[in-house]
Amino acid sequence: MKIAIQGELGSFSHEAAATFLPGNQVLPCTTSYDVFDRLEDKSVAAALIPIENSLAGPVAQHLDLLVAREVWIEREYRLRIRHNLIAAPEVPLRNIRRVLSHPVALEQCRDFFRKHTSMRSESFYDTAGSVKHVMENGLRDTGAIAGVEAAKQYGGHILHRSLEDDKQNFTRFFLVRTRKKAVAGANKTSIAFALKNAPGALFKALSVFALRDIDLSKIESRPLRGRPWEYVFFVDYLRGDDLDSRRALEHLKEVAEFVRVLGIYPAAR
Amino acid sequence: MKIAIQGELGSFSHEAAATFLPGNQVLPCTTSYDVFDRLEDKSVAAALIPIENSLAGPVAQHLDLLVAREVWIEREYRLRIRHNLIAAPEVPLRNIRRVLSHPVALEQCRDFFRKHTSMRSESFYDTAGSVKHVMENGLRDTGAIAGVEAAKQYGGHILHRSLEDDKQNFTRFFLVRTRKKAVAGANKTSIAFALKNAPGALFKALSVFALRDIDLSKIESRPLRGRPWEYVFFVDYLRGDDLDSRRALEHLKEVAEFVRVLGIYPAAR
Repeated sequence: MKIAIQGELGSFSHEAAATFLPGNQVLPCTTSYDVFDRLEDKSVAAALIPIENSLAGPVAQHLDLLVAREVWIEREYRLRIRHNLIAAPEVPLRNIRRVLSHPVALEQCRDFFRKHTSMRSESFYDTAGSVKHVMENGLRDTGAIAGVEAAKQYGGHILHRSLEDDKQNFTRFFLVRTRKKAVAGANKTSIAFALKNAPGALFKALSVFALRDIDLSKIESRPLRGRPWEYVFFVDYLRGDDLDSRRALEHLKEVAEFVRVLGIYPAAR
Repeated sequence: MKIAIQGELGSFSHEAAATFLPGNQVLPCTTSYDVFDRLEDKSVAAALIPIENSLAGPVAQHLDLLVAREVWIEREYRLRIRHNLIAAPEVPLRNIRRVLSHPVALEQCRDFFRKHTSMRSESFYDTAGSVKHVMENGLRDTGAIAGVEAAKQYGGHILHRSLEDDKQNFTRFFLVRTRKKAVAGANKTSIAFALKNAPGALFKALSVFALRDIDLSKIESRPLRGRPWEYVFFVDYLRGDDLDSRRALEHLKEVAEFVRVLGIYPAAR
């Protein structure tokens, strides 16, 4: 099947597709809007989108798009994020003076730059794009920090593996489709809801889960577009489509302005 | 006084400092860590940091640093974000073929590019940095999208004002110091807390506010470093240092693993 991702070939989304959905064709899209457009016009069967990183937090735009578009979360995956120093083949480590990458990736490799003071880090708009840039321009004194898939994609050589300071660096991905499909073993639900602007509204909303001993694994809030400082809440809870869950959702509708189920899927291990 | 900001001169943080704290000296710092280091080693009196954008969401790293460092929020401000097309002086709009800016800024100006199909947008690591790049390299066919302060800083000319699709685009800034100081009129409190990993824990935590009719204006969760999929919660509530607020915080300590007051300050209007 054809899977849309946001970003260049060689990005961490590409790495996630190669890891969890091997043998499928990946369609790289420039923006996240493009990814959801390709999904809706059926030019791809599915999209694989990062939703949250354990260090950097949520991918806000993807949360927004899950609500704005008619899509369904079919699976979740967790990818361990490994940053590697990549250069042109046969360029030795000692020749590297300048290292390009996305500012977030550079920040996650601070210890490496403290130990290697001869290298200067420089911000680039994308991790995989920085490898592409080094290779396309034949740079011999410049490296790039990105995932293994970027080295494969652009023919770069990995000089140093797993540079990241904190090895507990994971990104959670959703496999998204337009078709609602119950996958076997679905035991986790993602929902979005907005609340009437009243004191204690969130407390009441959470009570529908607490009163039924339904465990939340995550709560996130996002500003409502065009209504600054009002919020949509994103909640994940550890239940599939059972009676308690359905009752909790009915109850939630009594206190919320809108409730939307974004997906019911097996929890990633 | 000397105020540290993250990013280049001409950034939106610089614009916020010029707008809300005019006449002070601004010290640009490369990373957010640097900003907090300058604050702690007393080389600046205060730091002005973006904490949340009404479209893009929270600045996750700044939330983390507010907890990790011994600092205090003294004031909050809201800056209207206006994106402008900036070029070298005397370059007319019709000559612009390429427009550089941070990907988030480019995304927020999609309608502009739909109307001006002769211009191609290109990702750059920073808004103000893209203006600097255009000016320093004397580019005559390239523009940059950034705030007014960037045009002032690098001698650029504004070809088109307020390109952003959604005018409800605001960024909330915190003025942060190391000294705890109660500002007159403080009626809003920001706290952070972590919960024991137990069903209903967040419900219990929010009950301490709901039971006292204390209105929350915001809740945000952030992953705990080194403990993937456990979270710190950031809550803002609309009370100053009154008896109910103090009782709610005492009550919260009974159900939370830790509670930290990040600041008590006057709500921005």
